[in-house]
Amino acid sequence: MARFTDMQFIRFLLFEVHRAEELFQYPRFSHLDEEQVWMILESAAKLAEQELFPFLKEMDEQPARYDGKGGVRTHPQLKRIIQKTAEQQWIGAYAGFDEGGMQLPELVYNTGHHFFQAANNGVEGYTGLSAGAAGLILSFGSKEQIDTYVPKIFSGEWQGTMALTEPQAGSSLSDITTAAKPTANGHYLVKGQKIFISGGQHDACDNFIHLTLARIEGAPPGVKGISLFIIPKFRPGGDGDFIYNDVYCAGDFQKMGQRGYATTHLSFGDNDDCHAYLVGEPHKGLSYMFQMMNGARISVGQSAASVAMAAYQASLQYAKERPQGRHASEKDPTQPPILIIHHADVQRMLFTQKVIVEGALSLCMECSRLQDLKQISTGAEKEKYHLLLEILTPIVKTYASEQGSRSAALAIQVLGGYGFTTDFPVQQLYRDLKIMSLYEGTTGIQSLDLLGRKVTMENGKALQLLSEEIVATIHVAKKYPLLEPFAIQLEQELGRIQSVLGHLMRFAAKGETNRYLADAVVFMEMASLVVIGWQWLKQAVTAVEKLQEKNRQRSSPDFYESRIHLLQFFLRYELPHAAACAHTLVQPGGLTETGNLAYFG
Amino acid sequence: MARFTDMQFIRFLLFEVHRAEELFQYPRFSHLDEEQVWMILESAAKLAEQELFPFLKEMDEQPARYDGKGGVRTHPQLKRIIQKTAEQQWIGAYAGFDEGGMQLPELVYNTGHHFFQAANNGVEGYTGLSAGAAGLILSFGSKEQIDTYVPKIFSGEWQGTMALTEPQAGSSLSDITTAAKPTANGHYLVKGQKIFISGGQHDACDNFIHLTLARIEGAPPGVKGISLFIIPKFRPGGDGDFIYNDVYCAGDFQKMGQRGYATTHLSFGDNDDCHAYLVGEPHKGLSYMFQMMNGARISVGQSAASVAMAAYQASLQYAKERPQGRHASEKDPTQPPILIIHHADVQRMLFTQKVIVEGALSLCMECSRLQDLKQISTGAEKEKYHLLLEILTPIVKTYASEQGSRSAALAIQVLGGYGFTTDFPVQQLYRDLKIMSLYEGTTGIQSLDLLGRKVTMENGKALQLLSEEIVATIHVAKKYPLLEPFAIQLEQELGRIQSVLGHLMRFAAKGETNRYLADAVVFMEMASLVVIGWQWLKQAVTAVEKLQEKNRQRSSPDFYESRIHLLQFFLRYELPHAAACAHTLVQPGGLTETGNLAYFG
Repeated sequence: MARFTDMQFIRFLLFEVHRAEELFQYPRFSHLDEEQVWMILESAAKLAEQELFPFLKEMDEQPARYDGKGGVRTHPQLKRIIQKTAEQQWIGAYAGFDEGGMQLPELVYNTGHHFFQAANNGVEGYTGLSAGAAGLILSFGSKEQIDTYVPKIFSGEWQGTMALTEPQAGSSLSDITTAAKPTANGHYLVKGQKIFISGGQHDACDNFIHLTLARIEGAPPGVKGISLFIIPKFRPGGDGDFIYNDVYCAGDFQKMGQRGYATTHLSFGDNDDCHAYLVGEPHKGLSYMFQMMNGARISVGQSAASVAMAAYQASLQYAKERPQGRHASEKDPTQPPILIIHHADVQRMLFTQKVIVEGALSLCMECSRLQDLKQISTGAEKEKYHLLLEILTPIVKTYASEQGSRSAALAIQVLGGYGFTTDFPVQQLYRDLKIMSLYEGTTGIQSLDLLGRKVTMENGKALQLLSEEIVATIHVAKKYPLLEPFAIQLEQELGRIQSVLGHLMRFAAKGETNRYLADAVVFMEMASLVVIGWQWLKQAVTAVEKLQEKNRQRSSPDFYESRIHLLQFFLRYELPHAAACAHTLVQPGGLTETGNLAYFG
Repeated sequence: MARFTDMQFIRFLLFEVHRAEELFQYPRFSHLDEEQVWMILESAAKLAEQELFPFLKEMDEQPARYDGKGGVRTHPQLKRIIQKTAEQQWIGAYAGFDEGGMQLPELVYNTGHHFFQAANNGVEGYTGLSAGAAGLILSFGSKEQIDTYVPKIFSGEWQGTMALTEPQAGSSLSDITTAAKPTANGHYLVKGQKIFISGGQHDACDNFIHLTLARIEGAPPGVKGISLFIIPKFRPGGDGDFIYNDVYCAGDFQKMGQRGYATTHLSFGDNDDCHAYLVGEPHKGLSYMFQMMNGARISVGQSAASVAMAAYQASLQYAKERPQGRHASEKDPTQPPILIIHHADVQRMLFTQKVIVEGALSLCMECSRLQDLKQISTGAEKEKYHLLLEILTPIVKTYASEQGSRSAALAIQVLGGYGFTTDFPVQQLYRDLKIMSLYEGTTGIQSLDLLGRKVTMENGKALQLLSEEIVATIHVAKKYPLLEPFAIQLEQELGRIQSVLGHLMRFAAKGETNRYLADAVVFMEMASLVVIGWQWLKQAVTAVEKLQEKNRQRSSPDFYESRIHLLQFFLRYELPHAAACAHTLVQPGGLTETGNLAYFG
């Protein structure tokens, strides 16, 4: 089962590294236990295997496509798959019982979605997006809005979307111009264009609930004048009927990957009859949206890691079955060829994928667990989890998407020329992955967020808390002689981040904001390596502990030993590049500031 | 003209850095001068712009496709484009006048093909491959073979191919089994299967000349028993007629990129009537083929760099036209958005592409010039150029293909979400590029070649010669105070290669070949960074010299200054990763040797 992931690894992460059962102590999750949760997750994996994975290739070859008159045709199986997913409650499972959910922790819920993402990331896009949209309504919508929209989204009949991007504004949300005009009836009339709307109207759902950012007439300029609206494609008519709400799908975008996942251009209010319902208070839309956005960023990180996991598994399977060549030391050509997994370079490519994918997934679970802890705690503790999430969100999104692409390239490389052909899935996964560093904020945006907002927020408290978490793991690891040298290496790299920041902060202190932020992406790369190194140290500490408790091992000794081996691999092959980034960051003089455009010719 | 490249840069590389006019002093090229050569090249650029570039997208969307009965349908324009290319003599221009060519240096010939590769790399595949096949016949074929095949290949009527790979053997040429049986009539009868045959029979040419590796009955096992054959699809019948030669196209491979470039499966001798004509002596096929292969590896490197150049140019154009966002220091949202090229991170992405692409192209020209110098020199000098080419060939192929992919990913990133859509070419170029690290020897194969053969050949003489070349450039650069610190940095990195090799050589000396080669790819990455750093230092030295000779400047001062800026950028952002690779390479204990397969689960 589940050729696209590794069930043993997932179980280890969930219950041993990130200790899901600790969450089950809290009242909100006290209805759960490990065995039951694993059964729920196995049924998600089965759904992914039986319903999503078989259509991965077909959905790529028969992409979602605009019909020229307002509709988007999707794969004929999509409607059924969304319904099956909804039947197993995988759209709303995170919500409380009173909200129609299964009251699962995010940690468990997101693990379920990992299977969908790894099996067929386009399909998971539709259901994951609906889940996020419903969550936003649950958090900030009125009771009436919740009752009207959430159950239909959870049932998979309606699709939730997020409508932010406009053609002229792109990543710059302060420049959005979609206009909302108040009416005497409580609703607003909206007019504007939104592009790159994932799942934005198609033939597999009956209605579309667009969570839309727009500017109320007379609102202040910039992000402080943005409000959040619910805009359905068909609005409630009052007598139980639904009326077309003047939200027209004006076209779609054909893409190099995620071709089964519709990406559309929506036109609101062409006929001045597009009703919009304000969520929460006016002008606070961006802060509301950021709840969904932050969740979406973690999801994108997890999706990237999951797609890269599927590519890794495909390349591993190939490496175990394909005979070719001999060791360099074997000079006799009449000896039979060996399986390619025996070649050192193939192992290097597999291990590299493994440390990227499994390190990234571990960080995803770290973030999911923090979401849960934040939800169920109060006061200073809640603030701590909030700050940790704030600083880790751009990192998990960026590391998984950037390194996930590199990982999938290695999966292709393991297959050689075959990897480039459409006979194998690795090339599709490589194409699908490329979107992950772009949507929900590009790598550049995430890096500005990390260095410009998260590192400096509350006088550096988020960073301080993260450092404390990392130091705590280092501290435990140092108790084990086997891990001590690795713990020391990670400690040095953590110290290097501080010294680089000391250098950069001088620019910030002088008000040289642009210079401070110029190489934010390089800082992101450096910080990510340390954070993923931390996740590997954490896995290795857990493994050493489990190897000592001989009676309580869920996995084989080989599996636990592999954690230590992979930590060592990460520290040898990947982490040294953090020092290279530091070298780049502390050089004097800016190379990417304005003034030298003539150099581009 | 030529939106897909930078004519000023190409001219600078060709005449100022790599001093093409020095070649014109030799008798073979004395018919050429700079002005005339530039005119020839401008006409190639024009052909690329007018005939190749317009069909880039269409050829991707309407891929070459097998018809189910032996034929492959290509884009309707392909035949015409091949003929136009042939009319301008761009298939055979490298050949001597007496061979039907223009007797151009490789340096000039390959620069012409750069335009084709950057404009439409699939189309250049067909003509470049024909050129290589004809070159192989010219070098090792009989007069009759040359007269029969070369003129028709140069005229574009016939397609030349190379047929090496077999389904069961992949990269392992020692395992090929295609069998050749001698006959009393001088020809051989061949039987076997070849896959991944680029340009291997399609509807844009009338005949196909497959340069095929096969094993003569009773030949020794391994690579020492491989012979080279000419196998036409239609063989000369003796009376001027051509007879079908039992070479059946049994299918094609659909691919994630280079979709206009047919990749086929050929079946030789299904009806025991496939005549093959031995080239040169029996059992020497692999060494002959390596002439074509080495040329092809340099071509693939150049093709990768050229495709990445096209992606860079597309992203540069977008960055100069797209307004979005403001500097972080600008807090007033009513200020108009700025062009994205003014954002530091966009500049970083553009400069990164530029140092990769222009550094790689400079190394391509270095190799082309060495090919010419090798051809026109004798004795010890010829041997020197030969050894330099030997060691640089795997490096240029690998650096350009691996870093070219990274560069094209940055091109997508500059465009944001638009870069992922089929409305812009960057995503196609990213897809096309992925094949470059696979064909003509994967990155793993190139790296084994570098560390296992080229570094050690003739007691390390190739490496010593390369080091001397790099030291010579460093020596000149140190004379200029502006360049001295950069020269010193490169010198340190060159020394680091020596110290890493000192470490690795201990394994080789102990006969631990597998351990010595285990991280060959990491060594390749390190060595490539130093070699590209050398090319940047070379460009900067040239630029400083030109800035001092005020009256002889071909380009603007800005252009020359950009070379120094880009050198500095490369040394700051890219070169530090060489030290990280060194760190990986000198760690004790092998992590990718056999014995830990259990770690893969």
